[in-house]
Parts: sequence; structure tokens; C-alpha cells
Amino acid sequence: MPVYLDHNATTPVAGPVVAAMARALEACYGNPSSPYRQGQEAAAQLSTARESVARLIGANVDSLVMTGCATEANNLALLGVAAAAPANRRHLVVSAVEHPAVMEPARHLETQGWELSVVPVDAAGRVAVDEVMATVRPDTALVSIMLANNEVGTLQPLAEIAARLAGSATLLHTDAAQAVGKVPVDVDALGVDLLTLAGHKFQASKGIGALHVRSGTPIRRILFGAGHEHGLRPGTENVPAIVGLGAAAELAAQRLATGVGELQARRDRLHEHLRQGIPGLALNGHETYRLPNTLNVSFPGVEGRALLKAVEQAVAASVGSACHADQAAPSGVLGAMGLTTERALGAVRLSVGWETPLEDIDRAAECLIQAWQGRSA
Amino acid sequence: MPVYLDHNATTPVAGPVVAAMARALEACYGNPSSPYRQGQEAAAQLSTARESVARLIGANVDSLVMTGCATEANNLALLGVAAAAPANRRHLVVSAVEHPAVMEPARHLETQGWELSVVPVDAAGRVAVDEVMATVRPDTALVSIMLANNEVGTLQPLAEIAARLAGSATLLHTDAAQAVGKVPVDVDALGVDLLTLAGHKFQASKGIGALHVRSGTPIRRILFGAGHEHGLRPGTENVPAIVGLGAAAELAAQRLATGVGELQARRDRLHEHLRQGIPGLALNGHETYRLPNTLNVSFPGVEGRALLKAVEQAVAASVGSACHADQAAPSGVLGAMGLTTERALGAVRLSVGWETPLEDIDRAAECLIQAWQGRSA
Repeated sequence: MPVYLDHNATTPVAGPVVAAMARALEACYGNPSSPYRQGQEAAAQLSTARESVARLIGANVDSLVMTGCATEANNLALLGVAAAAPANRRHLVVSAVEHPAVMEPARHLETQGWELSVVPVDAAGRVAVDEVMATVRPDTALVSIMLANNEVGTLQPLAEIAARLAGSATLLHTDAAQAVGKVPVDVDALGVDLLTLAGHKFQASKGIGALHVRSGTPIRRILFGAGHEHGLRPGTENVPAIVGLGAAAELAAQRLATGVGELQARRDRLHEHLRQGIPGLALNGHETYRLPNTLNVSFPGVEGRALLKAVEQAVAASVGSACHADQAAPSGVLGAMGLTTERALGAVRLSVGWETPLEDIDRAAECLIQAWQGRSA
Repeated sequence: MPVYLDHNATTPVAGPVVAAMARALEACYGNPSSPYRQGQEAAAQLSTARESVARLIGANVDSLVMTGCATEANNLALLGVAAAAPANRRHLVVSAVEHPAVMEPARHLETQGWELSVVPVDAAGRVAVDEVMATVRPDTALVSIMLANNEVGTLQPLAEIAARLAGSATLLHTDAAQAVGKVPVDVDALGVDLLTLAGHKFQASKGIGALHVRSGTPIRRILFGAGHEHGLRPGTENVPAIVGLGAAAELAAQRLATGVGELQARRDRLHEHLRQGIPGLALNGHETYRLPNTLNVSFPGVEGRALLKAVEQAVAASVGSACHADQAAPSGVLGAMGLTTERALGAVRLSVGWETPLEDIDRAAECLIQAWQGRSA
């Protein structure tokens, strides 16, 4: 199997998560709303898992709304806040590098009469706090800016934005799908009202996400049914996946407790190896304010897509988000950062995991260097 | 553990489903949109699972939209059809006994200017085809009537309604969450345009549902993001749960191939045992047009809730849908059927599974009879 360097697309499910989910699938089949023993055992397991997830992001357990994926959580944040907003507050601010799971609901709101401001990013993929604040108006209902970018890993100054918004009625949402599990995330330290997380980005299963909704945030449900998840998300709770999310949260908390050094060491080893073999290799994204696992680099004189194709038996990585793996156009994120088309087309996103073996990193780097050296052969 | 007679609330996950999901969780972690081997293996497993699910309901594999639960599928059916409907077709028809996952989106559409007609049911919980058709108007965009009721198991005359709607522009949706896996379901034989199924109602995991959308049906997405599921449902595919859904579909197809006799025999054994011990026991729902696993009976002179409380160490069952397990009011479904409050409050829903041991059925019946006999002691 190729060395897996695409942890920003999705992660292998951690061993303890697989075990917890298998146990829940086998033994914990009750409906958590049922009063008898099978139901109450499921409810108890849900409750424990929710506490683990809440702890990981410093949230109150009652603030969590479990969803079927992070995309749904982002939709709930944007469309749910929009549904609750008064008619005279229909302005929304997002960054230019949001994932489609934020950009698309934002564009949908535009078709519903909302006004949308898109804040540009600098060459490192970062918004300027002053530029964000310059777009905020008295009728701005929501600012939604991702915590970490999926393609280049750039971290956004959420806490600074929150501080500037403090006291206003404008809500702040962050899509933290890429950040949770890779860097410490604390909803109070960030000062956000709403935060999205994605299970499969930190070694839980696909098919589970969550939205943190700070108590008192005006928001309405966007799916309609029975009254699960504080009335904000109907549907029988996904017990095994939520139990798995809890196990992944525990694992992430343990790792982050001793810092991100282990993760960053893997990324930096990969970077160093590549840099030595490839003159002119260019880092995309912010040197410092960046996810410790993400290395987006442009290879000179070759298209990233062609390079990856050449090494596909040995290295699993991508030129951008997996959602657009079939598109040949250069990445919109790199475009928003002002990269030339040539450099954008030369980009490869390499994203390591906590469990990526060091020898795999070296092997992958060798393969990439060899393929790059043979590019015009 | 109490004998589990609440398969309409949720089902134990089948052994082969647990095994398939555990394998997928362990080994099949790629993002199906990724072009490298891990991704393509996930994509291949998804494809196989989709085929199994499509086969179970006689659908084209391309007609399936996988969702995070059946509630989401119902929301997509109602709100998605509504979003695509022209402004002069904003009338919707549902039955009086729909699950909140249909009734609530219907009520939401009412707040958005839609007109809603609710067709009554008879004493057995069935709509009359003529009554349905009498409510259909030139501006009716959608008729949504469940295939089988969750509380009493009554089967609705969907094929007859479809035949009467044929050639009109009115779409037909059925919430088949309770029917799939318990009776043969074929989208062509039913003649429906849209059909909802729920994994956890037929021994797949919680957290996975699907909407069958017949090719050419005008419908729009209700969640916005990347272009997964034919553009109708964004979010990285829930590979392990979909693989499990495929395994559950295979199992269900095998069982249904030899008829529903095994399932019905369990239910009828329970009914017979109870009938012998409890004079005046009254069946709720249709004698014939009924799910083969569902037995909703009113116990004379006692409240169902109190009876279940008395046997809760021995029997796991419910007085209605799990979603409302904490409400003391009589069931709305039984009310719509015109039952007296006394009879409605005396009702208990007993729903067996394909794997319910016969001795468990006998033990549960004994306990219920004993508890009923001791009701006034």
C-alpha cells in the first residue's frame, strides 16, 4: 500500500476507535431514547462520549450538536443562524479560502437575498484582522472563518477576530474540521460562538461531525423531525460513531497534552528531506501559523498532478482537497493566495499523521525526489 | 438483558454487518474521492455496497443518495422537491400517521407558504386511496405517505396511489424506513418517485439512511458543499456505514427471498400466547395489511406504560415511537385511528426481529401476562 500522506483528506481510524465502535456495534444497539436497559446503556455511552468530545475543545457538553458530517455542521451553522436572524441582519462574512462546505451554503444564502462579503487572504493564506473587521457592518449576522486551511494548513487569527467582535451582535463561526486533533482547540480561548469539527479528520470514523453552539446563540434547526440534539438535529443518534468520536477525542487530548512536537517532527523531516533533494522547492502557506502536519509545496518545473501520478504506487497524497480530486484546474485556495498558475499547478499537499512511521516519510521523500528528477526524462 | 421486542425502535446490528464495518474501519480508510489506491479501494467497496442496497429495493444504483439518517432522507425528499417546485405548485399531501421526520418538514413548508393537506386514516390506520386522490390538486407537488407505520405496522396502499397518480406531475414519496428489510419493497412495483430507507431499522448501523430518487425527478439539494452523491448530498461518504448497509441489504434480501414466514411466525406466536392469557386484548392496526414483525395491542384495564414499567427487567418494548418515549400523552397515531383514550393508553408496541429466539418470545409473553394479572394487586 502506498505511504499515506493525505491525512487532511481523511485519516486512518485509530485502533482504540475501531475497538470502541466494534463494541458499540455489537453490544450497544439500544435506541438512546428508550427507557429500558438497552436504551439506557446506549444513552450512557453517548453521554460519556459527548463529555470526551466537549473536553477536547473546552466546551460545555450541552453545547454539542452531533451531525452526520462536518459539512452538515457547517450548513447548520450558516443556514441555522441565517434562519434565526432578523430580517434586517442579512449580511455574512467569510474568507476567500473556505471549504465548499462553508462557501456553498454562503452562496446559497446569497440566492436567498443575503449579502456576502468574501475577505481576501495574503500570500500565506491568512486573512488580516483589520480587513475582516472592515467588512463587518451593523447588519452582519455572522462571520465564518476557518481555523485551519485544508490545503495549505494556514491558521487564521480567530481569537483576534473574536476579541474585536466582542460585545457586538455579530456571531463568529469557525470551521475547525482540519484543526481539531492536530492543534489545541479551545472554544473559550478562541472566543467563537460556533465551531465545526469532523470525526474522520482526527482518526474517528467518517459519518460523524459536531457543531459547538455556545449557549444562548440564536440558531434554528435546518432538518426537521423528532427533537434530538436539543431540537437542533433530528434523527436517532449515531451511537457507534459518537462512541468512536469520544475515543478519538480522548486519544487526541492525550497526544496534544504533550504538544504537537511528534506530529511536527514528521512534517519537518519530510520537508527537510525534500528540500535537500529539490532545489527551488517552495512552501505554500504560512511558515509559522500552520498546522503541524501539513506541508504544501510547489515542485519546480512539473505539475503536482503528474508528479503524484508517477509515484502513485508508492505515495498517497493529493494536489488539493479530495473533493475536487478529479478537477484539473489549479486550486482556488492557492489562487486566492496570489500564486502564479505555474506554481499553483506544481503544488502537492503532503499531510502526515501522528502514526506515520518515520521510515515511510523517508521512503516517500525519496520517491518524490526521484520522480521529480526524472520529470523530463 | 431484557428480551428485546422493540425492533421498530432500532435493531441489533447483524453479525455480518458488524464484521463488514469493522473490516472497513480497519482497512478501508481512504477517501473515495482520492485517486490513489487507498481511495480507490474505498470507492470500490462503496460501489459494491450501493449495488446491494439498490438490489434490495429494485432500484437503479444511480438513484441512491446516501444520507446521515432516514430523517435526513425524508427532509431531502420533502424540502428538496419543494425547492425544485415551481411557484404555482406549492401544495403537499401527507397522511395523518406520518413520522415526525415527514410531518415536521411538511409543517415547516407550511410556514414557508405551502399548503398542506393531511389525509385521515381509518380505524386500522390505513388511508383510503380515494381520499388521497380527492386531496390531490393540479398544484400538488408531492404526496408523501409512509409505506408502513412505525407504531402499528399498518401498510399503506402505495402502489394503488401511484397508479392513480400516473401521468400527473405530482410526485410520490414514501417513507419506507419501517418496511425495508421486513417486507419485499420494490420501487418499480410501488411506482414511487422517492423512497426513504433507514439502516438501523434492518440491522445495519445507526447513522446511515438513503433516499431513492427516480431518474428525472425534479429535486434540489438541501445541504450545500462539495458535489458528493450526484450533487444531492455533500460530505465525505460514510464508507464503513455504507459498507454495513450493503451487508444488511444482502442479508435482508436472502431472508425475504424465502418469504416473511419466519418473522411473522414469531409475531403470531407472541400474539397467540398473549391472547390466551389476556381476555379482551385488542389488536391495533390492520389484521392483514401489516408488517409481519409488528404487534400493537391494547391491554384492558391497564396503561401500557405502567405495564412495561412493571416488566422492564424482563421485556424491552415501548408504547409508541422511541422518539417520544418520555411523553405521557397517548400516541397521535392511535388517536388518528380513532381509538378511545383508554384503549390508546393501554397500547404496547411489540416488534420482533428475524433473530428473536422463540423461547424469548414465550418468556416475554409470560411476563406480560403475569404483570397484567397482577395489575390491580
